[in-house]
Amino acid sequence: GAVDKGVDFANYFCTYGFLYHQKDMLCDRIRMDAYYNAVFENQHHFKGKAVLDVGTGSGILAIWSAQAGARKVYAVEATKMAEHARELIKANKLQDVIEVIEGSMEDVTLPEKVDVIISEWMGYFLLRESMLDSVLCARDRWLKPNGVMYPSHARMWMAPLRSGLVDQKMGDYKRAIEDWYGFVNETKTYYGVDMGVLTNPYTAEQQKFYLQTSMWNNLHPNQIIGEHVIVKEIDCLTATIDDIRIVEASISSSITQEIARLSGFGGWFDVHFRGSDKNPAKKEIELTTAPSEDSGTHWGQQVFLLHPSSNVKRGDKLMFQFSMSRSRENHRLMEVDLSCEIKQKSGESLPPFKKKFYIE
Amino acid sequence: GAVDKGVDFANYFCTYGFLYHQKDMLCDRIRMDAYYNAVFENQHHFKGKAVLDVGTGSGILAIWSAQAGARKVYAVEATKMAEHARELIKANKLQDVIEVIEGSMEDVTLPEKVDVIISEWMGYFLLRESMLDSVLCARDRWLKPNGVMYPSHARMWMAPLRSGLVDQKMGDYKRAIEDWYGFVNETKTYYGVDMGVLTNPYTAEQQKFYLQTSMWNNLHPNQIIGEHVIVKEIDCLTATIDDIRIVEASISSSITQEIARLSGFGGWFDVHFRGSDKNPAKKEIELTTAPSEDSGTHWGQQVFLLHPSSNVKRGDKLMFQFSMSRSRENHRLMEVDLSCEIKQKSGESLPPFKKKFYIE
Ligand SMILES: Nc1ncnc2c1ncn2[C@@H]1O[C@H](CSCC[C@H](N)C(=O)O)[C@@H](O)[C@H]1O
Ligand SMILES: Nc1ncnc2c1ncn2[C@@H]1O[C@H](CSCC[C@H](N)C(=O)O)[C@@H](O)[C@H]1O
Repeated sequence: GAVDKGVDFANYFCTYGFLYHQKDMLCDRIRMDAYYNAVFENQHHFKGKAVLDVGTGSGILAIWSAQAGARKVYAVEATKMAEHARELIKANKLQDVIEVIEGSMEDVTLPEKVDVIISEWMGYFLLRESMLDSVLCARDRWLKPNGVMYPSHARMWMAPLRSGLVDQKMGDYKRAIEDWYGFVNETKTYYGVDMGVLTNPYTAEQQKFYLQTSMWNNLHPNQIIGEHVIVKEIDCLTATIDDIRIVEASISSSITQEIARLSGFGGWFDVHFRGSDKNPAKKEIELTTAPSEDSGTHWGQQVFLLHPSSNVKRGDKLMFQFSMSRSRENHRLMEVDLSCEIKQKSGESLPPFKKKFYIE
Repeated sequence: GAVDKGVDFANYFCTYGFLYHQKDMLCDRIRMDAYYNAVFENQHHFKGKAVLDVGTGSGILAIWSAQAGARKVYAVEATKMAEHARELIKANKLQDVIEVIEGSMEDVTLPEKVDVIISEWMGYFLLRESMLDSVLCARDRWLKPNGVMYPSHARMWMAPLRSGLVDQKMGDYKRAIEDWYGFVNETKTYYGVDMGVLTNPYTAEQQKFYLQTSMWNNLHPNQIIGEHVIVKEIDCLTATIDDIRIVEASISSSITQEIARLSGFGGWFDVHFRGSDKNPAKKEIELTTAPSEDSGTHWGQQVFLLHPSSNVKRGDKLMFQFSMSRSRENHRLMEVDLSCEIKQKSGESLPPFKKKFYIE
């Protein structure tokens, strides 16, 4: 369906108007190092060139592009943050190079086509927020034929995991339902109204909230109990919005831990800065949000829990069908359908199951 | 300005579409008892009458109205909760009396005028959410000349208080600002960008968040250190939207505690069910959200903190000018301007001060 701009602003853009939110991103050293190195190790892409920064926020990527020698940078930002970006750019004496344009990328007109599009558009599990749409739209309208995308490639990953969250969330859910039954009794006793008919919809609501909504988590690598596998690869130079509107994949992953409890799946992403075939990077840079021993990125990983968890062994094979599409009410949120089958190393297969998840 | 319906839905109505949110209200025993008693101790207002429930939510007030003998109840609800209300009403065998209408009160057409309008429209500090507008609009269109409003009256209260929150929030704020300076240094050192020019707007943002935004709190009566005073009285039968768009009051309150630290003000409300002059209640019912020794209502109180706090003594007189208006960006949120002067019992006056607060 068509997107109401005002509603989209209320739901999505509003948080980006706060400096504390921009600061959270600016404090993510892994993210910052990746973009910084991508720009400054590949200054040949920027020297004397025209650059477009899609969603400039505080203006940081536009500033680096200018510092790396860009002739002109167009820095487009939908929120009032554009005004702060303008101040920051002036204080760093780059106002002659960088033009801040407050507006939706989709609505903006540039005076020329650009050599480079740089953008930090990635959401949780890569595609949440659907901001890549705006970048692809900008590319089709404003990138020169031999232009370069920063980043140039992106991948979604998944892996089986163990996590104490599976018991915790089930406990929360069960308590919520017990509490509901107490409430139904009280309301009948004290106020003469039988709420029992709402038990089913309430249960569905709580199930969605506690058991079917993916969670932000900072996974430790030792929670990953099997092979991590690619769900989707995106070439930012050629992908179309239709290519990313629905992500479908048939994937299999083998358990690598001797014995483990399969509590669910972790999802994350990486992006690469490789330039293009015709105009490659001097130094390729990777930004990964995979589970790490260190503190990780602000993206963390998304965790999809399976209830109940099952016991698995090294060599057991998980085969799953993954399908992710946009939520009907809000195209920036996602729904995931996952069917899974476990083929045990012993030869037996466990009964296949299907689950629906929400990335909210 | 004009309200965009889609945006208003995204910002405001969305939460009411969840059963857990309706349940929170249905679990508030003080709220429930007040409405229940108001209806069942005054059945003469309902027997054989036409009733309008503005914002029926789960349908509870419509159901009670029907159980108290209403001939017809129109139960209007803007969100999908209307469907659950319909189910609940059917399960309680009242579908012949209650007609659930899904839609905005402002847009709905009823087949007849009504004898009673019942609604639970109160937000934090009474007027947050601005839902009273919808009730007054419904009254002007649909209430018969001698009709009755449930509730019939409402009052806003304020009182000086002491609270440990004043130090806690100041600590939070100071840590946030220290952290910002660390961030500015790091960004300069590692990434060659001087963020110093954003220090002022960042400080303003954090000040608003930590020091100027009123807080939900469940105050204990012994935190109230002076007289509680009325800020506004509303007669629901005669008040106009213009009467409530801006709330202005000159108020004075004497300190009643021997020695105390004035940390700020608490704001709350009460409503009464008195029927009307021509058609009075048999039993008047009060619903108060004042600080209480018991668990209190889900509304709690709103706390407006003063930084720094000052020492006050019994007999000191606080004189304040209170002005509350709607936030420009969202008419359901409020801004409060408070000027305050302390006349000490000793005769001296402390320097007057002004503060701006946000009820978000
Ligand atoms: N279609 C669009 N048009 C303009 N700005 C957009 C946009 N979609 C998202 N944005 C903006 O893009 C930013 C993404 S966050 C990244 C900010 C900055 N480039 C940095 O790397 O720190 C947000 O500020 C958001 O408001
Ligand atoms: N203008 C309007 N038109 C229709 N419904 C409205 C409305 N403004 C608010 N509401 C609804 O009013 C309800 C207020 S909460 C009270 C619910 C219920 N009457 C009870 O007492 O438990 C919410 O469900 C909200 O969605």
